[in-house]
Amino acid sequence: MSLKIAMAQMEVIPGHPDKNTAKILSLMQRAAEAEAQLVIFPEMAVPGYLLGDTWEQSAFLADCESYGRDIIAATEGTGLTVMFGNIAVDWQKKNNDGRVRKYNALFTAQNGKLVQPDSMPYPYIIKTLMPNYREFDDTRHFFSLQKLARELGTTPEQLLSPLSLKIEGRHYDVGCLLCEDGWSANYELTPLAAITRSKQVDFFVNISASPYTLGKNNRRNIVFGDQAAETRAPLLYVNAIGLQNNGKTIYTFDGSSTAYDAAGRVVAEIPAYKEDFAFVELSKLSELPELPADNKSDIAHIHQALRYGISHFLQDIHMQRVVIGISGGIDSAVAAALYTEVLGPENVLLVNMPSRFNSETTKGLSAQLAHNLGCRYMVIPIQQSVEHTIEQLEQTPMEYLQENTQSSLQVSSFVAENIQARDRSARVLAGAAAAFGAGFTCNANKAETTVGYSTLYGDQSGFLAALADLWKFQIYELAYYLNREIFRREVIPQGIIDIVPSAELSTAQNVDEGKGDPLKYPYHDHLFRAFVERWQKAAPEDILGWYAEGSLEDNLGCERGLIKKYFPTATDFIADLERWWNLFSGMAVAKRIQAPPILAVSRRAYGFDHREAQNGPYYTRKYRELKAKLLAEK
Amino acid sequence: MSLKIAMAQMEVIPGHPDKNTAKILSLMQRAAEAEAQLVIFPEMAVPGYLLGDTWEQSAFLADCESYGRDIIAATEGTGLTVMFGNIAVDWQKKNNDGRVRKYNALFTAQNGKLVQPDSMPYPYIIKTLMPNYREFDDTRHFFSLQKLARELGTTPEQLLSPLSLKIEGRHYDVGCLLCEDGWSANYELTPLAAITRSKQVDFFVNISASPYTLGKNNRRNIVFGDQAAETRAPLLYVNAIGLQNNGKTIYTFDGSSTAYDAAGRVVAEIPAYKEDFAFVELSKLSELPELPADNKSDIAHIHQALRYGISHFLQDIHMQRVVIGISGGIDSAVAAALYTEVLGPENVLLVNMPSRFNSETTKGLSAQLAHNLGCRYMVIPIQQSVEHTIEQLEQTPMEYLQENTQSSLQVSSFVAENIQARDRSARVLAGAAAAFGAGFTCNANKAETTVGYSTLYGDQSGFLAALADLWKFQIYELAYYLNREIFRREVIPQGIIDIVPSAELSTAQNVDEGKGDPLKYPYHDHLFRAFVERWQKAAPEDILGWYAEGSLEDNLGCERGLIKKYFPTATDFIADLERWWNLFSGMAVAKRIQAPPILAVSRRAYGFDHREAQNGPYYTRKYRELKAKLLAEK
Repeated sequence: MSLKIAMAQMEVIPGHPDKNTAKILSLMQRAAEAEAQLVIFPEMAVPGYLLGDTWEQSAFLADCESYGRDIIAATEGTGLTVMFGNIAVDWQKKNNDGRVRKYNALFTAQNGKLVQPDSMPYPYIIKTLMPNYREFDDTRHFFSLQKLARELGTTPEQLLSPLSLKIEGRHYDVGCLLCEDGWSANYELTPLAAITRSKQVDFFVNISASPYTLGKNNRRNIVFGDQAAETRAPLLYVNAIGLQNNGKTIYTFDGSSTAYDAAGRVVAEIPAYKEDFAFVELSKLSELPELPADNKSDIAHIHQALRYGISHFLQDIHMQRVVIGISGGIDSAVAAALYTEVLGPENVLLVNMPSRFNSETTKGLSAQLAHNLGCRYMVIPIQQSVEHTIEQLEQTPMEYLQENTQSSLQVSSFVAENIQARDRSARVLAGAAAAFGAGFTCNANKAETTVGYSTLYGDQSGFLAALADLWKFQIYELAYYLNREIFRREVIPQGIIDIVPSAELSTAQNVDEGKGDPLKYPYHDHLFRAFVERWQKAAPEDILGWYAEGSLEDNLGCERGLIKKYFPTATDFIADLERWWNLFSGMAVAKRIQAPPILAVSRRAYGFDHREAQNGPYYTRKYRELKAKLLAEK
Repeated sequence: MSLKIAMAQMEVIPGHPDKNTAKILSLMQRAAEAEAQLVIFPEMAVPGYLLGDTWEQSAFLADCESYGRDIIAATEGTGLTVMFGNIAVDWQKKNNDGRVRKYNALFTAQNGKLVQPDSMPYPYIIKTLMPNYREFDDTRHFFSLQKLARELGTTPEQLLSPLSLKIEGRHYDVGCLLCEDGWSANYELTPLAAITRSKQVDFFVNISASPYTLGKNNRRNIVFGDQAAETRAPLLYVNAIGLQNNGKTIYTFDGSSTAYDAAGRVVAEIPAYKEDFAFVELSKLSELPELPADNKSDIAHIHQALRYGISHFLQDIHMQRVVIGISGGIDSAVAAALYTEVLGPENVLLVNMPSRFNSETTKGLSAQLAHNLGCRYMVIPIQQSVEHTIEQLEQTPMEYLQENTQSSLQVSSFVAENIQARDRSARVLAGAAAAFGAGFTCNANKAETTVGYSTLYGDQSGFLAALADLWKFQIYELAYYLNREIFRREVIPQGIIDIVPSAELSTAQNVDEGKGDPLKYPYHDHLFRAFVERWQKAAPEDILGWYAEGSLEDNLGCERGLIKKYFPTATDFIADLERWWNLFSGMAVAKRIQAPPILAVSRRAYGFDHREAQNGPYYTRKYRELKAKLLAEK
């Protein structure tokens, strides 16, 4: 008889071991009913993974241990073997920070007892490789098998071996990996090789807590497929679903748990974001047909992640309604359509807040959008309030008490622009949201967020910045996608897609005259992406070098000919580059520090995945030299 | 002749290797003029230390290398030997994240060349221990000597040995440590022991980039003094001064560089926050008198750190003026006095913004404070604007377009409270600040910040939260300190110190009737401190356990008898505990995500040193059981 395995793609609720354990116990029951002999749960299935410094609460750790014992006990008297991820604590030892020793561990239990791995000093398997890049913080909290080996005077290789598992009289050698253990390309140690060095394994298990980012699953199929093929052993990848966050950055976990046969073919897959089992029979994996490669478009993937993330986040914070300020521009229109898709039109209040600078065009487009979506709708003008504010500021005497003199403040037109933006958000939207029993959204995109093209406590505010990991071109793609694939009609008016992006905060931003944002998105989207998303980040020195050698457009991946069109001379080009670099590393950092949480979809979202300091802009010596040369050549 | 060493306590500007190198070169010149033979600069003196992910810019790394070469070259033809911290890059190798290999390194140069350490594979000394707790992120960016040893198939012990230094014909064995290398208590490896295992060293150097926190220097004197005494070798600790930040959390670096003689006595010390040399003659250290232990009060230390931090941060962001909303309460009064001390009264605009709920008492106290300080002063009432907002929200029809119906919003008194708070900050203060060419301050203390007793885009906003790492009792101590020691007169009126803390946002918060905040600071300060600042954080399970066994006041360090006074029954106690725990792990997290940068003084400031996720409150099983038991006993 073939071993029947239930891959349990469960939703893990971070920081709630009680709920996760209840779920695990109920799924164990269902797996047993389906006659599975082995059920596999994700990494950190009991505590959750992204918990900040909750790992420093001893009470929480002991609680996770106690729930772990419940899971182990539940195998008593059943034929079911269970593998699950949990935190493991050695209360007698310390981490390098002097806190109690914690391992990120895989527990295997049957007949009410843990199965002892051959060469481990504990009755569980310890994660060997600790990701400490992007949003991951493993080394902050968990003691790795590498460190443990050193402490014990041995090597990790000596501690790694297949887990010997006996199920219904048959013996299996199982290669056990925890998430990063399977991504060892840049480590001095390959857990997979260490495990298989002395013995062929019957199959691998990789339990993971791996957030979704665009393109990750395709890479994973290549890497993990190769591992299976090279070791000639099937590999079962079991990932969690759900929503976890690091405060500033929110990650969807898509699951997408996958079985690879011994040839590395994808033969079973659990749909993304769905809590479900995949039941596989070990000896029959190679008989299954290979599943076709994913052919969904990027924007379809992004939409799926956003919808799941928004919907889940709203549930998590117990919010059923939202308020969205709509300007007649593309960002707020896409936000309105997305939230309406998630919550229904009755729970979405759209508010248009014109001042004297807003055109009839955008006011009309706002109304049209609201009608198309069928939402709740209000028009609340801000002109009177803004004038009252300016009047109060200018007409209230400012005394200088030290010298007993008086003067008064002057409100410039730039200051007045920001007064408008704050009036809309902090006065109208925040008030309307509270009265509506809702939160209000931040509709900023990633290009604006990069350079802080926004007003703090104005359009930069909100309970969630759901679109802040999307470049402007992706916002447009999403607009088309929502109209075409989701609503199947033009809910976002074509006029909103066609209009020039503008803040409409002064006459200099008159959309009817084609005036708008200073950002040239077809170029700046890609420039900013190079600042942020490249694995080795690009700085002005790199950009200017590419510009000088004529390879900039190719290096950035933007349309050829753009640079010459936008910037006739090197002086123009350099002025633009420095303008945005100064903002990116200056005022925009200050704004991001106070920005709402961002829903991540890219491999580099702002927040915890892009750590930054308010240190001001810097230009390297080489940059300054190249700049001088280019300007002299003029 | 004795070796003359210049310990160079320099200000390091994070992310600006050009400026730091210019400073180093000029200090080298001065050290040579003073006939020093060896000059020692801090860890990461070239690049700075807290740079976020700037370490991922190849151009920045290469720039730091190039400035490092300038420093090395500058020793050519001089008798001076220099030791300095810089990033070291091996462009041929990779970190575990796939990015280029980076070491946190100590370089030693003389005669235009690097001095090769005996057993290192590179011409510099690599930091062995990588702090990855609190605000530190070393493992994210730097490859440790431990990892390198593993890669080379050896042990860190084999790579560690004294640096052989020849100066004017004499030979010295120098034990070289980088910051955390000297704090090895919880590591499986002690660099100091490894260095001295085969040979007595002539002296130790510990170059550091160690931020100030309350009480750190006393601990350091014990730890480092012991190291010197145990190895019978003098130890020279050279630390940077300046201001560095991780975005959300801002750290002052106090320097306080110290020389310990071979008996472990403190024999030389450079004053905190001062850029200066200490010149020491190696053979004469033991002849110097021991310096007296620091006897400054905690609040004097805190004041010093705050003054330095505020003043430096304002310089860094090029801000010469501030606007402070003053309410007649203690927090804003302390902020007003502190900023006035730093900037002078002409650059501080105090704004009192009464609504109908503000008493004559607090309005009078605000005016008195402003007069005492001699600042600029305005009174801008908010009643009209708040009423206009409520009227707009309630009287604008809300259409439901799907069903073609209409309704309207209702503004409750709670919603109106927050409208007032936002009106003050986002409308008046933000506008006044922009018009005054200033930023406006956030005056929140740590107790409020812990439970989010504040309004987002209201009193929670500002360019800097300078007091958000101080508990309420520390705010009062600081008020007394400012009056007594700094201004030497009652600038903060005694009435402000005596009045009940209150937000004055409704009649329920009438100060003249003694009504105010729901926080009982003499207890809650200490309860919240246990949530946040304990090395193993306390959770409700711990608190309730201590309560049940009658040890809570002793465990928290608050006055005995308080609990019984505030909470007559277990039901009262538990309701209070859960109220604040729910807020601490719920809404307050959301507020902190959008809070301004916080100036750190404690060993656990909010922000990067207290990582957290928006996961909602959690109560362990043991807590729930104990709670049920206590409530049943009633």
